[in-house]
Amino acid sequence: MSEGHHVVVVGGGFGGLQLVNDLKGAAVRITLIDRRNHHLFQPLLYQVATTVLATSEIAWPIRHLYRDRPEVTTLLGEVTGADPIARTISLDGGQTIAYDTLVLATGATHAYFGHDEWAAVAPGLKTLEDATTIRRRVLLAFERAELEQDPERRDALLTFTIIGAGPTGVELAGIIAEMAHRILPAEFRRIDTRRARVVLVEAGPRILPAFSEELSGYAGRELKKLGVEVWTGTPVTDCSAAGVVIGDRFLPSCTLVWAAGVQASPAASWLGIPADRAGRALVGDDLTAPGHPEVFVIGDTASVSQADGKPVPGIAPAAKQQGAFVARTIRARLEGRPAPGPFRYRHQGSLATIGRRAAIIDFGRIKLKGALAWWIWGVAHIYFLIGTRSRFAVAWSWLWTFLSGQHSARLITQKETEDVEAVELRD
Amino acid sequence: MSEGHHVVVVGGGFGGLQLVNDLKGAAVRITLIDRRNHHLFQPLLYQVATTVLATSEIAWPIRHLYRDRPEVTTLLGEVTGADPIARTISLDGGQTIAYDTLVLATGATHAYFGHDEWAAVAPGLKTLEDATTIRRRVLLAFERAELEQDPERRDALLTFTIIGAGPTGVELAGIIAEMAHRILPAEFRRIDTRRARVVLVEAGPRILPAFSEELSGYAGRELKKLGVEVWTGTPVTDCSAAGVVIGDRFLPSCTLVWAAGVQASPAASWLGIPADRAGRALVGDDLTAPGHPEVFVIGDTASVSQADGKPVPGIAPAAKQQGAFVARTIRARLEGRPAPGPFRYRHQGSLATIGRRAAIIDFGRIKLKGALAWWIWGVAHIYFLIGTRSRFAVAWSWLWTFLSGQHSARLITQKETEDVEAVELRD
Repeated sequence: MSEGHHVVVVGGGFGGLQLVNDLKGAAVRITLIDRRNHHLFQPLLYQVATTVLATSEIAWPIRHLYRDRPEVTTLLGEVTGADPIARTISLDGGQTIAYDTLVLATGATHAYFGHDEWAAVAPGLKTLEDATTIRRRVLLAFERAELEQDPERRDALLTFTIIGAGPTGVELAGIIAEMAHRILPAEFRRIDTRRARVVLVEAGPRILPAFSEELSGYAGRELKKLGVEVWTGTPVTDCSAAGVVIGDRFLPSCTLVWAAGVQASPAASWLGIPADRAGRALVGDDLTAPGHPEVFVIGDTASVSQADGKPVPGIAPAAKQQGAFVARTIRARLEGRPAPGPFRYRHQGSLATIGRRAAIIDFGRIKLKGALAWWIWGVAHIYFLIGTRSRFAVAWSWLWTFLSGQHSARLITQKETEDVEAVELRD
Repeated sequence: MSEGHHVVVVGGGFGGLQLVNDLKGAAVRITLIDRRNHHLFQPLLYQVATTVLATSEIAWPIRHLYRDRPEVTTLLGEVTGADPIARTISLDGGQTIAYDTLVLATGATHAYFGHDEWAAVAPGLKTLEDATTIRRRVLLAFERAELEQDPERRDALLTFTIIGAGPTGVELAGIIAEMAHRILPAEFRRIDTRRARVVLVEAGPRILPAFSEELSGYAGRELKKLGVEVWTGTPVTDCSAAGVVIGDRFLPSCTLVWAAGVQASPAASWLGIPADRAGRALVGDDLTAPGHPEVFVIGDTASVSQADGKPVPGIAPAAKQQGAFVARTIRARLEGRPAPGPFRYRHQGSLATIGRRAAIIDFGRIKLKGALAWWIWGVAHIYFLIGTRSRFAVAWSWLWTFLSGQHSARLITQKETEDVEAVELRD
């Protein structure tokens, strides 16, 4: 256990896994710690929240991925702090683990801009539990509307509000609208689910600001075709169990989803180093923490600038590139070679889907939209999944959805007690 | 909404669905009420609990099954009582629903023989949430053992006790042993999962009492080959977070699963009619409640005797036969024909699997065991699933498990708070 250079990696997301993958064969032993037992393919999490995919199709037990790497030890645990002087990290059970090199890849969570009380009524989408919570609330809203006798309350139950119009918000709104308008109408007898309202709220001037104006405009028109109401330029000023206040207008809405902001995990405060407003550690262009060259921070936990001064976006390809960069740096140091220069982010393109027939892709010079973009998006995502089983399972679920127009995972699950809590919140 | 004979069916299990299916084309309108939004294929639930299958592979939204039957209204709700004089049932929201014919198919839950406090430490297996709870606890036990530094506590974490050796207990024990001894060893660095103990406890003299002694003996030998310790003739006298008392011997064991007894849902007390010791309503041989010919009780909620005096077993084929019988009775009454004589249960055979290579089948005269029985079992269960998608998905999951020796759904999910509760229970 004690021989060799010890790399401790905290976080089994895209950045952490890329790092461990790329350290294969290096003269290190690795301890990979995550508070979940699974790596999650977050770009498709919205499809779990909207009943298209099952949880197990986009998540893999981390330790299984490294079963053939005896130098990799996987631990399920919550890291509570780091001591960069003693070179240890501490786990919630009280254990400490010593490192020679530490890589913090702990990701981000939702930010409610100082209104953490909104979290209970407007869940975000970061974990499998978040996804099954949103799935449960969306499905329960239709179920309760079918039972509801008060027309005003029925309308509120059939109003779904998604706050934030980045790719996740757009993707959630598109599929919820498709469910309401195309999939569910035949199954309800007392309500007409086609009368459901899906409202996508964006504080900024347009949806999908990371895309060109043309693609953003196309996405807005496609959303409207699906029946989504797009409200731009209007910030949300309050969220409650009864609904949402947009600007100064109250919209009765029983189901809210938060897709608006993120807050980095507290890696910067563990290290005692400066952070930006979103809590991301301000690291050097070699991704090390200031004053601690043996500590790296990568992915959504790190704030890094591109050559043009723009921040590196918080997306999977960026985290993977950083993981690969840190692996090269560690190898160079161990072998006494010079470090591989500053980290340079290479943007490979932006993708978003609108419902199950249209997508937009922005490769910079090349911009695509429509059905072709949707197929490219689908093939790319299947390619990036881990393992034959998942690729096959997701491809099958999508094919089935495409051919039958139905979704595979329309399950309301979770503890009875939580259901009761949800009811109490709403009533 | 108000015209025609109104059949209210409470419970979307095997009995309730068979009834609704068989009433297709009859001059009735039907309201089907369940407190879950999904029908669950309970015979495979143990495979969700043991990471072989995903939740969505064995559960289907009930209302989707009847999308093409406009006379069927599906409601998600908890029935809290029935008034057989007024001919109404009441829902937890306060609504009442009037019926002309009522069919109670509300199933059963676990029975702890007067020790309901054991439920928190020894969950049973009846719902999807039960299955994900057991899955979470089994997987977390290995994870915590990998972190544990105290050897005694580590041994307790690696001891899994299944209480009750009917088919569910045998099936759970077999797969947990396979996981510990064949699937997980390569993935842990600090513990040897092959040292895990899987203990199957049965108060009666032998496992699988519904099968012949020969098949029961074969199953016991196969379990031992998989590494399961079988303790028969010893009742469990206490369960706690620290372990289980079997007879007067304490076995330190952090993961307990209850597969020992069932208690019927309270349909009999709603109706004010006699019940047996397990709470099952004592119905006539036409499955009606005494004094209420328009009220039927079927499935695990009903106590019915066979011609030879033995009780009809609480298994899916029995519930389906009762649902079909009630549908014939309702049709005969509506058409003024004589009722179809007393209900006769036809036993089609008993099946159980031991791990992923062996099974036993008892058709009465024909008895099968081993690999052939396993294949028959698998094909039969795929046949009984609902819909092409599920059949394909389960067949693919099994094929993948068979070829790769890996399981598809090794996810620890559920709310953080529940995880914390589970930890507190154990510590």
